[in-house]
Amino acid sequence: MKAYRVGEKLRRFYHYYPGTVAVIGVPDPHHGANFMPAVWNAGLSFEPPLFGVAVSPKRHTYAALDAGKPFSVSFFPFEKAELVALLGSVSGREVNKVEAFGLELFWGETLKVPLLKGAFAAYELEPWGRMATGDHTLFVGRVRAVWEDETAFNEDGVPAPDQVAALLYYGRFLYGRPEPETRKLKFR
Amino acid sequence: MKAYRVGEKLRRFYHYYPGTVAVIGVPDPHHGANFMPAVWNAGLSFEPPLFGVAVSPKRHTYAALDAGKPFSVSFFPFEKAELVALLGSVSGREVNKVEAFGLELFWGETLKVPLLKGAFAAYELEPWGRMATGDHTLFVGRVRAVWEDETAFNEDGVPAPDQVAALLYYGRFLYGRPEPETRKLKFR
Repeated sequence: MKAYRVGEKLRRFYHYYPGTVAVIGVPDPHHGANFMPAVWNAGLSFEPPLFGVAVSPKRHTYAALDAGKPFSVSFFPFEKAELVALLGSVSGREVNKVEAFGLELFWGETLKVPLLKGAFAAYELEPWGRMATGDHTLFVGRVRAVWEDETAFNEDGVPAPDQVAALLYYGRFLYGRPEPETRKLKFR
Repeated sequence: MKAYRVGEKLRRFYHYYPGTVAVIGVPDPHHGANFMPAVWNAGLSFEPPLFGVAVSPKRHTYAALDAGKPFSVSFFPFEKAELVALLGSVSGREVNKVEAFGLELFWGETLKVPLLKGAFAAYELEPWGRMATGDHTLFVGRVRAVWEDETAFNEDGVPAPDQVAALLYYGRFLYGRPEPETRKLKFR
Protein backbone atom coordinates (compact mmCIF):
# COMPACT_ATOMS: atom_id res chain seq x y z
CA MET A 1 0.00 0.00 0.00
CA LYS A 2 1.06 3.54 -0.71
CA ALA A 3 0.28 6.46 1.58
CA TYR A 4 -0.50 10.09 0.91
CA ARG A 5 -1.37 12.99 3.16
CA VAL A 6 -4.72 14.68 2.87
CA GLY A 7 -5.44 18.39 2.84
CA GLU A 8 -8.85 20.05 2.93
CA LYS A 9 -10.52 17.63 0.58
CA LEU A 10 -10.03 14.06 -0.56
CA ARG A 11 -10.44 13.82 -4.30
CA ARG A 12 -11.70 10.25 -4.08
CA PHE A 13 -13.47 9.20 -0.92
CA TYR A 14 -14.83 5.74 -1.72
CA HIS A 15 -12.46 3.37 0.12
CA TYR A 16 -15.23 2.16 2.47
CA TYR A 17 -17.72 1.48 -0.32
CA PRO A 18 -19.89 -0.37 -1.36
CA GLY A 19 -22.76 0.41 0.92
CA THR A 20 -26.46 -0.30 0.95
CA VAL A 21 -28.58 2.66 -0.07
CA ALA A 22 -31.10 4.15 2.36
CA VAL A 23 -33.81 5.91 0.36
CA ILE A 24 -34.98 8.73 2.59
CA GLY A 25 -38.66 9.66 2.36
CA VAL A 26 -40.05 12.93 3.70
CA PRO A 27 -43.33 14.81 3.50
CA ASP A 28 -43.01 17.63 0.96
CA PRO A 29 -45.08 20.83 0.98
CA HIS A 30 -45.19 20.98 -2.83
CA HIS A 31 -45.15 17.38 -4.02
CA GLY A 32 -46.75 15.64 -1.04
CA ALA A 33 -43.65 13.48 -0.68
CA ASN A 34 -40.03 13.46 -1.78
CA PHE A 35 -37.37 10.76 -1.82
CA MET A 36 -33.57 10.76 -2.05
CA PRO A 37 -30.97 7.97 -1.83
CA ALA A 38 -28.27 8.24 0.84
CA VAL A 39 -25.32 5.87 0.98
CA TRP A 40 -23.87 7.59 4.05
CA ASN A 41 -26.06 5.77 6.51
CA ALA A 42 -25.45 3.59 9.57
CA GLY A 43 -26.99 1.98 12.60
CA LEU A 44 -26.08 3.97 15.71
CA SER A 45 -27.76 2.26 18.69
CA PHE A 46 -29.66 -0.90 19.59
CA GLU A 47 -31.51 0.45 22.63
CA PRO A 48 -33.12 2.73 21.71
CA PRO A 49 -32.90 1.69 18.04
CA LEU A 50 -31.26 4.61 16.24
CA PHE A 51 -30.38 4.99 12.57
CA GLY A 52 -28.49 7.88 10.97
CA VAL A 53 -28.30 9.43 7.52
CA ALA A 54 -25.86 12.15 6.45
CA VAL A 55 -27.43 14.73 4.14
CA SER A 56 -25.94 17.81 2.50
CA PRO A 57 -27.71 21.17 2.98
CA LYS A 58 -27.67 21.36 -0.84
CA ARG A 59 -30.30 18.62 -1.03
CA HIS A 60 -33.99 19.48 -1.27
CA THR A 61 -34.69 16.81 1.38
CA TYR A 62 -32.51 18.71 3.86
CA ALA A 63 -35.23 21.28 4.55
CA ALA A 64 -37.71 18.70 5.82
CA LEU A 65 -35.10 17.00 8.01
CA ASP A 66 -33.85 20.36 9.26
CA ALA A 67 -37.42 21.28 10.21
CA GLY A 68 -37.63 18.16 12.37
CA LYS A 69 -40.10 16.24 10.23
CA PRO A 70 -40.32 12.48 10.71
CA PHE A 71 -38.79 10.52 7.87
CA SER A 72 -38.55 7.03 6.46
CA VAL A 73 -35.67 5.00 5.09
CA SER A 74 -36.28 2.17 2.63
CA PHE A 75 -33.95 -0.57 1.47
CA PHE A 76 -34.24 -1.95 -2.04
CA PRO A 77 -33.17 -5.07 -3.88
CA PHE A 78 -30.77 -4.86 -6.81
CA GLU A 79 -33.70 -5.22 -9.21
CA LYS A 80 -34.72 -1.68 -8.24
CA ALA A 81 -31.33 -0.14 -9.08
CA GLU A 82 -32.79 2.02 -11.85
CA LEU A 83 -35.47 3.46 -9.59
CA VAL A 84 -32.92 4.34 -6.90
CA ALA A 85 -30.52 5.82 -9.45
CA LEU A 86 -33.36 7.89 -10.92
CA LEU A 87 -34.25 9.22 -7.46
CA GLY A 88 -30.66 10.39 -7.11
CA SER A 89 -30.46 11.91 -10.58
CA VAL A 90 -32.67 14.97 -10.02
CA SER A 91 -33.61 17.31 -7.20
CA GLY A 92 -37.05 17.56 -5.65
CA ARG A 93 -36.49 21.29 -5.98
CA GLU A 94 -36.94 20.96 -9.75
CA VAL A 95 -38.94 17.81 -10.21
CA ASN A 96 -41.94 16.21 -8.55
CA LYS A 97 -40.36 12.77 -8.39
CA VAL A 98 -43.60 11.10 -7.38
CA GLU A 99 -45.24 12.23 -10.62
CA ALA A 100 -42.22 12.17 -12.90
CA PHE A 101 -41.27 8.60 -12.04
CA GLY A 102 -44.76 7.31 -11.32
CA LEU A 103 -43.75 6.34 -7.80
CA GLU A 104 -46.08 4.04 -5.92
CA LEU A 105 -46.11 5.26 -2.37
CA PHE A 106 -47.92 4.54 0.83
CA TRP A 107 -47.88 6.16 4.24
CA GLY A 108 -46.52 5.01 7.58
CA GLU A 109 -48.80 3.44 10.14
CA THR A 110 -47.10 4.99 13.14
CA LEU A 111 -45.66 8.24 11.77
CA LYS A 112 -46.74 10.50 8.93
CA VAL A 113 -43.95 9.44 6.58
CA PRO A 114 -44.09 8.43 2.91
CA LEU A 115 -42.74 5.03 1.88
CA LEU A 116 -42.13 3.42 -1.50
CA LYS A 117 -43.36 0.12 -2.81
CA GLY A 118 -40.72 -2.28 -4.03
CA ALA A 119 -38.47 -2.12 -0.97
CA PHE A 120 -37.78 -5.27 1.07
CA ALA A 121 -37.55 -3.32 4.34
CA ALA A 122 -38.16 0.17 5.70
CA TYR A 123 -38.16 2.13 8.94
CA GLU A 124 -40.43 4.90 10.16
CA LEU A 125 -38.13 7.29 12.02
CA GLU A 126 -38.85 9.94 14.60
CA PRO A 127 -36.26 12.75 14.79
CA TRP A 128 -33.95 11.99 17.72
CA GLY A 129 -30.85 14.15 17.27
CA ARG A 130 -28.43 15.66 14.82
CA MET A 131 -24.78 16.52 14.39
CA ALA A 132 -23.21 19.00 12.01
CA THR A 133 -20.40 17.11 10.27
CA GLY A 134 -18.44 19.34 7.91
CA ASP A 135 -20.38 19.78 4.67
CA HIS A 136 -23.16 17.36 5.76
CA THR A 137 -25.51 16.99 8.70
CA LEU A 138 -26.07 13.64 10.34
CA PHE A 139 -29.75 13.22 11.11
CA VAL A 140 -30.43 10.55 13.68
CA GLY A 141 -33.86 8.95 13.84
CA ARG A 142 -35.42 6.59 16.32
CA VAL A 143 -37.04 3.56 14.74
CA ARG A 144 -40.72 3.65 15.65
CA ALA A 145 -41.95 1.08 13.13
CA VAL A 146 -40.42 -1.53 10.85
CA TRP A 147 -41.73 -2.70 7.51
CA GLU A 148 -40.29 -5.91 6.18
CA ASP A 149 -40.74 -8.56 3.57
CA GLU A 150 -40.11 -11.55 5.79
CA THR A 151 -38.96 -13.70 2.90
CA ALA A 152 -35.91 -11.46 2.50
CA PHE A 153 -34.41 -12.43 5.87
CA ASN A 154 -32.96 -15.67 7.16
CA GLU A 155 -33.82 -17.31 10.49
CA ASP A 156 -31.42 -14.93 12.27
CA GLY A 157 -33.19 -11.90 10.83
CA VAL A 158 -30.29 -11.14 8.50
CA PRO A 159 -30.73 -10.10 4.82
CA ALA A 160 -28.69 -13.09 3.64
CA PRO A 161 -27.81 -12.77 -0.06
CA ASP A 162 -29.23 -16.15 -1.01
CA GLN A 163 -32.60 -14.68 0.02
CA VAL A 164 -32.32 -11.07 -1.11
CA ALA A 165 -29.75 -9.31 -3.30
CA ALA A 166 -29.54 -5.97 -1.51
CA LEU A 167 -28.70 -3.04 -3.77
CA LEU A 168 -25.07 -1.99 -3.29
CA TYR A 169 -23.62 1.35 -4.36
CA TYR A 170 -19.93 1.77 -5.19
CA GLY A 171 -19.84 5.48 -5.93
CA ARG A 172 -19.63 7.19 -9.34
CA PHE A 173 -23.00 5.84 -10.55
CA LEU A 174 -21.90 2.21 -10.11
CA TYR A 175 -24.37 -0.28 -8.62
CA GLY A 176 -24.07 -3.96 -7.83
CA ARG A 177 -25.22 -6.83 -5.66
CA PRO A 178 -23.72 -9.34 -3.24
CA GLU A 179 -22.78 -12.89 -4.15
CA PRO A 180 -25.25 -15.48 -2.87
CA GLU A 181 -22.50 -17.44 -1.10
CA THR A 182 -21.58 -16.52 2.47
CA ARG A 183 -19.37 -17.83 5.26
CA LYS A 184 -20.43 -18.09 8.87
CA LEU A 185 -17.40 -17.36 11.04
CA LYS A 186 -18.20 -17.74 14.70
CA PHE A 187 -15.21 -18.17 16.97
CA ARG A 188 -16.79 -17.55 20.34
CA MET B 1 -44.47 -5.97 3.40
CA LYS B 2 -45.75 -6.27 6.91
CA ALA B 3 -45.34 -3.59 9.56
CA TYR B 4 -44.81 -3.73 13.30
CA ARG B 5 -44.31 -1.06 15.91
CA VAL B 6 -41.08 -0.88 17.84
CA GLY B 7 -40.65 -0.37 21.58
CA GLU B 8 -37.38 0.18 23.43
CA LYS B 9 -35.39 -2.33 21.46
CA LEU B 10 -35.52 -3.94 18.05
CA ARG B 11 -34.83 -7.64 18.35
CA ARG B 12 -33.35 -7.79 14.86
CA PHE B 13 -31.70 -4.67 13.52
CA TYR B 14 -30.04 -5.80 10.28
CA HIS B 15 -32.34 -4.47 7.54
CA TYR B 16 -29.65 -2.10 6.22
CA TYR B 17 -26.92 -4.73 6.08
CA PRO B 18 -24.57 -5.85 4.52
CA GLY B 19 -21.91 -3.27 5.19
CA THR B 20 -18.19 -3.06 4.72
CA VAL B 21 -16.24 -3.52 7.92
CA ALA B 22 -14.01 -0.74 9.23
CA VAL B 23 -11.31 -2.28 11.42
CA ILE B 24 -10.50 0.38 14.00
CA GLY B 25 -6.90 0.55 15.20
CA VAL B 26 -5.86 2.40 18.35
CA PRO B 27 -2.71 2.69 20.43
CA ASP B 28 -3.08 0.51 23.55
CA PRO B 29 -1.27 1.11 26.84
CA HIS B 30 -0.89 -2.64 27.51
CA HIS B 31 -0.58 -4.27 24.11
CA GLY B 32 0.92 -1.44 22.08
CA ALA B 33 -2.03 -1.60 19.70
CA ASN B 34 -5.55 -2.94 19.60
CA PHE B 35 -7.99 -3.53 16.75
CA MET B 36 -11.76 -4.05 16.54
CA PRO B 37 -14.15 -4.40 13.57
CA ALA B 38 -17.02 -1.92 13.30
CA VAL B 39 -19.79 -2.31 10.74
CA TRP B 40 -21.58 0.82 11.95
CA ASN B 41 -19.42 3.19 9.97
CA ALA B 42 -20.05 5.89 7.36
CA GLY B 43 -18.60 8.79 5.48
CA LEU B 44 -19.87 12.06 6.95
CA SER B 45 -18.28 14.90 4.97
CA PHE B 46 -16.19 15.53 1.86
CA GLU B 47 -14.67 18.85 2.91
CA PRO B 48 -13.16 18.35 5.38
CA PRO B 49 -13.07 14.58 4.83
CA LEU B 50 -14.80 13.06 7.85
CA PHE B 51 -15.46 9.41 8.66
CA GLY B 52 -17.45 8.06 11.61
CA VAL B 53 -17.53 4.82 13.59
CA ALA B 54 -20.09 3.95 16.27
CA VAL B 55 -18.56 2.10 19.23
CA SER B 56 -20.18 0.76 22.39
CA PRO B 57 -18.70 1.80 25.77
CA LYS B 58 -18.51 -1.94 26.47
CA ARG B 59 -15.67 -2.28 23.97
CA HIS B 60 -12.05 -2.13 25.07
CA THR B 61 -11.33 0.19 22.13
CA TYR B 62 -13.79 2.72 23.52
CA ALA B 63 -11.33 3.94 26.16
CA ALA B 64 -8.75 5.05 23.61
CA LEU B 65 -11.37 6.79 21.46
CA ASP B 66 -12.96 8.38 24.53
CA ALA B 67 -9.54 9.70 25.55
CA GLY B 68 -9.24 11.45 22.19
CA LYS B 69 -6.48 9.29 20.73
CA PRO B 70 -6.01 9.29 16.98
CA PHE B 71 -7.21 6.11 15.31
CA SER B 72 -7.08 4.24 12.03
CA VAL B 73 -9.71 2.41 10.02
CA SER B 74 -8.71 -0.33 7.58
CA PHE B 75 -10.75 -2.02 4.87
CA PHE B 76 -10.12 -5.64 4.00
CA PRO B 77 -10.83 -7.94 1.09
CA PHE B 78 -13.05 -10.98 1.53
CA GLU B 79 -9.95 -13.20 1.69
CA LYS B 80 -9.26 -11.71 5.14
CA ALA B 81 -12.70 -12.60 6.54
CA GLU B 82 -11.22 -14.95 9.15
CA LEU B 83 -8.82 -12.32 10.43
CA VAL B 84 -11.60 -9.74 10.78
CA ALA B 85 -13.93 -12.25 12.44
CA LEU B 86 -11.16 -13.21 14.87
CA LEU B 87 -10.60 -9.56 15.77
CA GLY B 88 -14.28 -9.33 16.65
CA SER B 89 -14.37 -12.58 18.61
CA VAL B 90 -12.43 -11.47 21.70
CA SER B 91 -11.86 -8.31 23.71
CA GLY B 92 -8.56 -6.48 23.99
CA ARG B 93 -9.38 -6.38 27.68
CA GLU B 94 -8.65 -10.11 27.89
CA VAL B 95 -6.39 -10.82 24.95
CA ASN B 96 -3.41 -9.16 23.34
CA LYS B 97 -4.74 -9.56 19.81
CA VAL B 98 -1.45 -8.53 18.23
CA GLU B 99 0.34 -11.46 19.90
CA ALA B 100 -2.54 -13.94 19.95
CA PHE B 101 -3.27 -13.62 16.23
CA GLY B 102 0.27 -12.82 15.09
CA LEU B 103 -0.91 -9.54 13.60
CA GLU B 104 1.45 -7.79 11.23
CA LEU B 105 1.15 -4.14 11.96
CA PHE B 106 2.79 -0.92 10.95
CA TRP B 107 2.42 2.66 12.08
CA GLY B 108 0.94 5.70 10.42
CA GLU B 109 3.15 8.20 8.67
CA THR B 110 1.15 11.23 9.68
CA LEU B 111 -0.45 10.18 12.99
CA LYS B 112 0.67 7.75 15.67
CA VAL B 113 -1.89 5.08 14.76
CA PRO B 114 -1.43 1.35 14.26
CA LEU B 115 -2.46 -0.22 10.95
CA LEU B 116 -2.73 -3.82 9.77
CA LYS B 117 -1.15 -5.45 6.77
CA GLY B 118 -3.53 -7.17 4.37
CA ALA B 119 -5.98 -4.28 3.97
CA PHE B 120 -6.57 -2.72 0.55
CA ALA B 121 -7.16 0.75 2.03
CA ALA B 122 -6.90 2.59 5.34
CA TYR B 123 -7.27 6.04 6.84
CA GLU B 124 -5.29 7.77 9.55
CA LEU B 125 -7.88 9.76 11.52
CA GLU B 126 -7.55 12.69 13.85
CA PRO B 127 -10.35 13.05 16.43
CA TRP B 128 -12.77 15.67 15.14
CA GLY B 129 -15.99 15.27 17.14
CA ARG B 130 -18.34 12.86 18.80
CA MET B 131 -22.02 12.28 19.47
CA ALA B 132 -23.61 10.11 22.13
CA THR B 133 -26.15 7.94 20.29
CA GLY B 134 -28.10 5.75 22.70
CA ASP B 135 -26.00 2.74 23.67
CA HIS B 136 -23.12 3.72 21.34
CA THR B 137 -20.96 6.75 20.72
CA LEU B 138 -20.26 7.99 17.23
CA PHE B 139 -16.61 8.99 16.97
CA VAL B 140 -15.91 11.22 14.01
CA GLY B 141 -12.39 11.44 12.63
CA ARG B 142 -10.81 13.69 10.08
CA VAL B 143 -8.86 11.87 7.39
CA ARG B 144 -5.27 13.07 7.59
CA ALA B 145 -3.69 10.34 5.49
CA VAL B 146 -4.87 7.64 3.11
CA TRP B 147 -3.25 4.27 2.47
CA GLU B 148 -4.34 2.45 -0.62
CA ASP B 149 -3.53 -0.45 -2.86
CA GLU B 150 -4.07 1.32 -6.15
CA THR B 151 -4.88 -1.91 -7.97
CA ALA B 152 -8.06 -2.24 -5.88
CA PHE B 153 -9.69 0.84 -7.42
CA ASN B 154 -10.98 1.60 -10.88
CA GLU B 155 -10.21 4.74 -12.90
CA ASP B 156 -12.89 6.63 -10.94
CA GLY B 157 -11.27 5.73 -7.61
CA VAL B 158 -14.06 3.32 -6.77
CA PRO B 159 -13.45 -0.14 -5.22
CA ALA B 160 -15.17 -1.88 -8.14
CA PRO B 161 -15.85 -5.55 -7.39
CA ASP B 162 -14.10 -6.83 -10.51
CA GLN B 163 -10.94 -5.37 -8.98
CA VAL B 164 -11.41 -6.03 -5.27
CA ALA B 165 -13.95 -8.17 -3.41
CA ALA B 166 -14.54 -5.99 -0.35
CA LEU B 167 -15.44 -7.91 2.79
CA LEU B 168 -19.16 -7.56 3.53
CA TYR B 169 -20.78 -8.30 6.87
CA TYR B 170 -24.43 -9.35 7.14
CA GLY B 171 -24.74 -9.62 10.93
CA ARG B 172 -24.87 -12.77 13.06
CA PHE B 173 -21.34 -13.88 12.10
CA LEU B 174 -22.19 -14.01 8.39
CA TYR B 175 -19.65 -12.67 5.88
CA GLY B 176 -19.71 -12.39 2.13
CA ARG B 177 -18.51 -10.53 -0.94
CA PRO B 178 -19.96 -8.56 -3.85
CA GLU B 179 -20.56 -10.01 -7.28
CA PRO B 180 -17.99 -8.87 -9.85
CA GLU B 181 -20.70 -7.57 -12.21
CA THR B 182 -21.91 -4.00 -11.84
CA ARG B 183 -24.20 -1.58 -13.64
CA LYS B 184 -23.37 2.04 -14.33
CA LEU B 185 -26.59 4.04 -14.09
CA LYS B 186 -26.01 7.67 -14.91
CA PHE B 187 -29.10 9.64 -15.82
CA ARG B 188 -27.80 13.19 -15.59
